[in-house]
Amino acid sequence: MILLEPESAGNIGSVARSMKNFDQNDLWLVNPKTPIDTQARALAMHGFDVLSSAKIVNQLEKALSGIDTVVGTSSVSAQSTSNIARISITPEELAFALSAARGNVALIFGRESSGLTNLEIENCDLLVTIPASRVYNVLNLSTAVSITLYELFQQEQRGRELRLATSITRQRLLEQFELLVNRSGTPMHKRKLAARAFRNIASRSFLSRREASLLIGVFRKAALKLK
Amino acid sequence: MILLEPESAGNIGSVARSMKNFDQNDLWLVNPKTPIDTQARALAMHGFDVLSSAKIVNQLEKALSGIDTVVGTSSVSAQSTSNIARISITPEELAFALSAARGNVALIFGRESSGLTNLEIENCDLLVTIPASRVYNVLNLSTAVSITLYELFQQEQRGRELRLATSITRQRLLEQFELLVNRSGTPMHKRKLAARAFRNIASRSFLSRREASLLIGVFRKAALKLK
Repeated sequence: MILLEPESAGNIGSVARSMKNFDQNDLWLVNPKTPIDTQARALAMHGFDVLSSAKIVNQLEKALSGIDTVVGTSSVSAQSTSNIARISITPEELAFALSAARGNVALIFGRESSGLTNLEIENCDLLVTIPASRVYNVLNLSTAVSITLYELFQQEQRGRELRLATSITRQRLLEQFELLVNRSGTPMHKRKLAARAFRNIASRSFLSRREASLLIGVFRKAALKLK
Repeated sequence: MILLEPESAGNIGSVARSMKNFDQNDLWLVNPKTPIDTQARALAMHGFDVLSSAKIVNQLEKALSGIDTVVGTSSVSAQSTSNIARISITPEELAFALSAARGNVALIFGRESSGLTNLEIENCDLLVTIPASRVYNVLNLSTAVSITLYELFQQEQRGRELRLATSITRQRLLEQFELLVNRSGTPMHKRKLAARAFRNIASRSFLSRREASLLIGVFRKAALKLK
């Protein structure tokens, strides 16, 4: 977690607390515009160890040594005023993307007043934007950090609890479903649509191994009988 | 949105900002322990109108008039020290549950120091807990509010984009799937498990109407042929 030129000590403290809430420990402050003061410590609560072990550096590059994937963050309005034609993803999509990624990941959050510059965003591998109101979409810094970490934590939990199906198992499931579709008497023009609908559902629902294998069993048996 | 005996003016301001970020306007403060001061106004930012139109009452009942569904919130630790055998749901599950609900909903967030009392929780229709670290799962009040509103906002957006299947359509889909399972030759002891697995997937994947109707078509046709 990297805060780039943070301006509010309160936000730094709140970020430390949220990091502790979501099992993150590694906080970097790049060229902070405020010292870590009593307010920061008060707001950090039980995240005081995250706060006190924060690394303070004067250049972003120093915080990125050893990092494989750099994730930038931006509000919608910050993007629309920029020249960057860059597709941003949601925190949920980020969590899903990172669950399959290897290596070290850094999240960068910009200044409270102006976010990340265009150049800073261009240097990121991924850009995340939190979906928010059309009327007012600029979130408080520590709120934005918290929502992003919450999504990463949720994905981590899902992976642990569900023992997610591997991509090979998911592929077998889709094949068995297609076989069933082809033998079910579904009109030709709907077969591809049905297969795509099922693929979308399977990818959105975080299939567990157990669930996938139960469905494979049902589709396989039905398709065999229909042969 | 109801804050019950909030203790920090900063949190009240931060909550107002997050409400504005996620298109919520109706803020109630029950017996607040702090006035709405300059810090609250500073943190509310563009949520100043939410803050200035907040209703201040001295009893929870007054904030609940006209409400059909009351949602309480609690950290995990607050629950484990209570005597209440109450199953809490995640914000994501809440968003899904409310997407099918009618009527007025109130979210209640308790005191920063001690949350909601057992009695206050017992009087709620639903209880929400944000999944968080085993080491430290007590989130800052405005962080907890923000994450919950973010999930509700996401669900709203999904509903708009996907045109979610109605609960009647989902029910029809599950029935057709069960019919297929029963005629597929799946061993008796696995039928219920398979049906449950499919139900779980269907509920987690935010089925659109189109997707549901395509799958209903396939399962119906296959089941008819297997008759």
